[in-house]
Amino acid sequence: MARRRTGVLAAGTLAVGAIALGSAVYAVSPGFTDDRSADLAAAINPAKPKNVILLIGDGTDDSIITAARNYELGAKGRFALDELPFTGAMTTFGLKTGPNPDDYPINYVSDSAPTASGWSTGKKTVDSRLSQGPSSGDTVPGEDYETVLEKYKKQGKRTGNVSTAEITDATPAAAAAHINLRACQGPTDMASCPTAKKSAGGKGSVAEQLVDNKIDVILGGGLNRYNQTTDAGPSVLSYAQSAHKYQVIKDKTALSGVDTLANGPILGLFSGGNMTPKYKPLTATPAGAGGPDTTCQTADRGTQPSLADMTDKAIKLLDNDKGFFLQVESAMVDKQEHASDLCGAIGDVLELDKALKVAQAYQAKHPDTLIIVTGDHAHSTQIVGNGGSTTDATGATGGKATATVKTADGDPMTVAYSTSNPGGSQSHTGAQIRVAASGPQAANVTGTIDQTDLFATMLGRTPSR
Amino acid sequence: MARRRTGVLAAGTLAVGAIALGSAVYAVSPGFTDDRSADLAAAINPAKPKNVILLIGDGTDDSIITAARNYELGAKGRFALDELPFTGAMTTFGLKTGPNPDDYPINYVSDSAPTASGWSTGKKTVDSRLSQGPSSGDTVPGEDYETVLEKYKKQGKRTGNVSTAEITDATPAAAAAHINLRACQGPTDMASCPTAKKSAGGKGSVAEQLVDNKIDVILGGGLNRYNQTTDAGPSVLSYAQSAHKYQVIKDKTALSGVDTLANGPILGLFSGGNMTPKYKPLTATPAGAGGPDTTCQTADRGTQPSLADMTDKAIKLLDNDKGFFLQVESAMVDKQEHASDLCGAIGDVLELDKALKVAQAYQAKHPDTLIIVTGDHAHSTQIVGNGGSTTDATGATGGKATATVKTADGDPMTVAYSTSNPGGSQSHTGAQIRVAASGPQAANVTGTIDQTDLFATMLGRTPSR
Ligand SMILES: [Mg+2]
Ligand SMILES: [Mg+2]
Ligand SMILES: [Zn+2]
Ligand SMILES: [Zn+2]
Ligand SMILES: [Zn+2]
Ligand SMILES: [Zn+2]
Repeated sequence: MARRRTGVLAAGTLAVGAIALGSAVYAVSPGFTDDRSADLAAAINPAKPKNVILLIGDGTDDSIITAARNYELGAKGRFALDELPFTGAMTTFGLKTGPNPDDYPINYVSDSAPTASGWSTGKKTVDSRLSQGPSSGDTVPGEDYETVLEKYKKQGKRTGNVSTAEITDATPAAAAAHINLRACQGPTDMASCPTAKKSAGGKGSVAEQLVDNKIDVILGGGLNRYNQTTDAGPSVLSYAQSAHKYQVIKDKTALSGVDTLANGPILGLFSGGNMTPKYKPLTATPAGAGGPDTTCQTADRGTQPSLADMTDKAIKLLDNDKGFFLQVESAMVDKQEHASDLCGAIGDVLELDKALKVAQAYQAKHPDTLIIVTGDHAHSTQIVGNGGSTTDATGATGGKATATVKTADGDPMTVAYSTSNPGGSQSHTGAQIRVAASGPQAANVTGTIDQTDLFATMLGRTPSR
Repeated sequence: MARRRTGVLAAGTLAVGAIALGSAVYAVSPGFTDDRSADLAAAINPAKPKNVILLIGDGTDDSIITAARNYELGAKGRFALDELPFTGAMTTFGLKTGPNPDDYPINYVSDSAPTASGWSTGKKTVDSRLSQGPSSGDTVPGEDYETVLEKYKKQGKRTGNVSTAEITDATPAAAAAHINLRACQGPTDMASCPTAKKSAGGKGSVAEQLVDNKIDVILGGGLNRYNQTTDAGPSVLSYAQSAHKYQVIKDKTALSGVDTLANGPILGLFSGGNMTPKYKPLTATPAGAGGPDTTCQTADRGTQPSLADMTDKAIKLLDNDKGFFLQVESAMVDKQEHASDLCGAIGDVLELDKALKVAQAYQAKHPDTLIIVTGDHAHSTQIVGNGGSTTDATGATGGKATATVKTADGDPMTVAYSTSNPGGSQSHTGAQIRVAASGPQAANVTGTIDQTDLFATMLGRTPSR
């Protein structure tokens, strides 16, 4: 077999490059030799963060991180997200609706709405709900909970919200919208959220709430939601421009051309729906998709910017004396896992890592910046197929689909999807997931935390002594 | 539904109890408020460890830890292993045999032999191989690699090896045996390891090598292997007694009675094969085993001691002025996951945690003790079944088996097994797994490490500055 050793060499180079953290240098290179106690101690910073950059890989658990690393860098490689000095495990459970407000049942596998609401508000809620408390039923609104973004905006910091999904999708929506059901993304999607309609005196759809919250930089997909007509008549896009002076941009050339917020906040919508993942799909099948010579193929993203492009522009626009809060989501990891698409999912883990490097370049010059990288919940992908169990990996019997690629090591890696039947949407799972951080108060992600604990950490916790 | 809130209260109590680490106090309580930077800084200790206690949960990945926590303590609960101050992710890949010694293929899903060999020797090897390097084929022995246990023994430290599996099983075997195939556990199991036979001038079977290594305290299952006849005639048990003065004990009463190594090292074999897990099996089925009112039932372990009992006795016997190295394995987590047995697996995560608490009680009085808790590789169990995907959890279609229990929250939790067909042995998976530590040099588990990195950490790394 032709072995692709260049990938391993590239990984080695990455691993050797240490991360600058103020005066501290920290790198977890494979085969490191010296004790790192002093390096870790030097990376501890108890100050409250001036700037916060939260990077989320939707559905990005330890399994898909490992699969992406194996493919892109080889098993010995290290992503930038691997090298962050403070790491922990994070629980992601949610609640179920119920009649007793003092005792909502626990939901051990969450969707993306309560998970993002968890770190955004510091409180648990039910599936499909955005930064609003639990209640007796899906269509019964709960109490609105203020978000990190909203609190920081009140303090005078700039705010940003970036995603490769529709910007009205659950993860970016929870940062600055409050509604009983995530499906109520645009003003004509409000059938299940009647009291939230603006014509009913509510805060409106997610699309409307994001711009009414005057987020300084909004970048992602979801133009179709903004082309929906509001209850008052004009489109959300027109409303955003007339009511809040949003500058609307629609392609990467326009994004490059923006260099100030002086003319109004930025609303960049680069796709009608979700944006295009880095790689073309490799969809798992019962017979086994791909093989030992299969590599992922780069998709044509047309005029869409990359997640790193959007992150870079957002940071440049948000940088100011009072600081900023920026949430960045690599959304398609999750969506391609639902679709049993191995290449789509692992490519967008790499995109998350590239966005992190952009954030780290800013942090290197602004060490008062807290960076957190994590997922929102675990997902379906399992790396399978050691020598003794090839029959597991073939999917010859019902219920499983597999895909195989040639990794940067030059060796075949097989993954399986089995939380739904082949062709169905694969499901989230309930395992705790990895969280990593650097910068002020990053030590608070160490150990086992719950995702609601990120709320107070991002806002800056009181020193303990 | 009758809700079992006492479990949650118990968890809350556990979480409030902080871990004493020399002068440092560190606890990751759910909903913690103050910044923990100072606590983490105080927990950093760059000294070389005098004593090392390595606790392994075989197959114990983030998924089964979460399932066990949900069941035993509720989703908000915290195990002792959750509260350790230093945490990281650990890769577990291995190698495959091959013709080119400079380029063995990567094996992305490992069995328990190369993984335990990894931390024991600091080097990668192939599936089924014990502390011996890779080679061109399974029956071709590789180079013997010296283990942490052997190195520390040479330095004059005492050594211990504890497992709930046969003590000749892969994980405990890798600590102090070198052989091309893990199946060669006793002198009559040597068909595939002909050159290792003592009659052929080799080091003998795993059973023989463990006692020839004069490990001070050996506690576990596997009496049947020691009843096998050696090439020289007598049983391994007789040989251990005559050649090395091992004191043989076979039940928990005898274990309680031992209080000195003055009469010879200890060989405690409490079961013919593997020891009995804490809970009776709840075996997943395609139709769905258990239900919302199912709880796990405690098994009758007869005269067998618990893992905590064995750990406590081992530490008491090993404690001495020169220090000790002790490996403790909760082995049946893995074996019950292979058997799709939810209760068996999660109960023995709890047993691992109880053994950790015993180790922590020693560490509290001997802060020069490094404690590491981790698994060896990921496994098959997935927590499934949120509101929108009940059809996934029922296993109505082929290829999946599920089981449901009532957790300490009083709510149902469902897990699925699908890496093999129902009734078959479930397979390991390739995700990185959690590693946690406290004490001297524990900071070296932070970030993303490989399991071979534990080797140098356990031996004590050179200070970096
Ligand atoms: Mg999302
Ligand atoms: Mg084992
Ligand atoms: Zn999600
Ligand atoms: Zn999803
Ligand atoms: Zn194992
Ligand atoms: Zn196993």
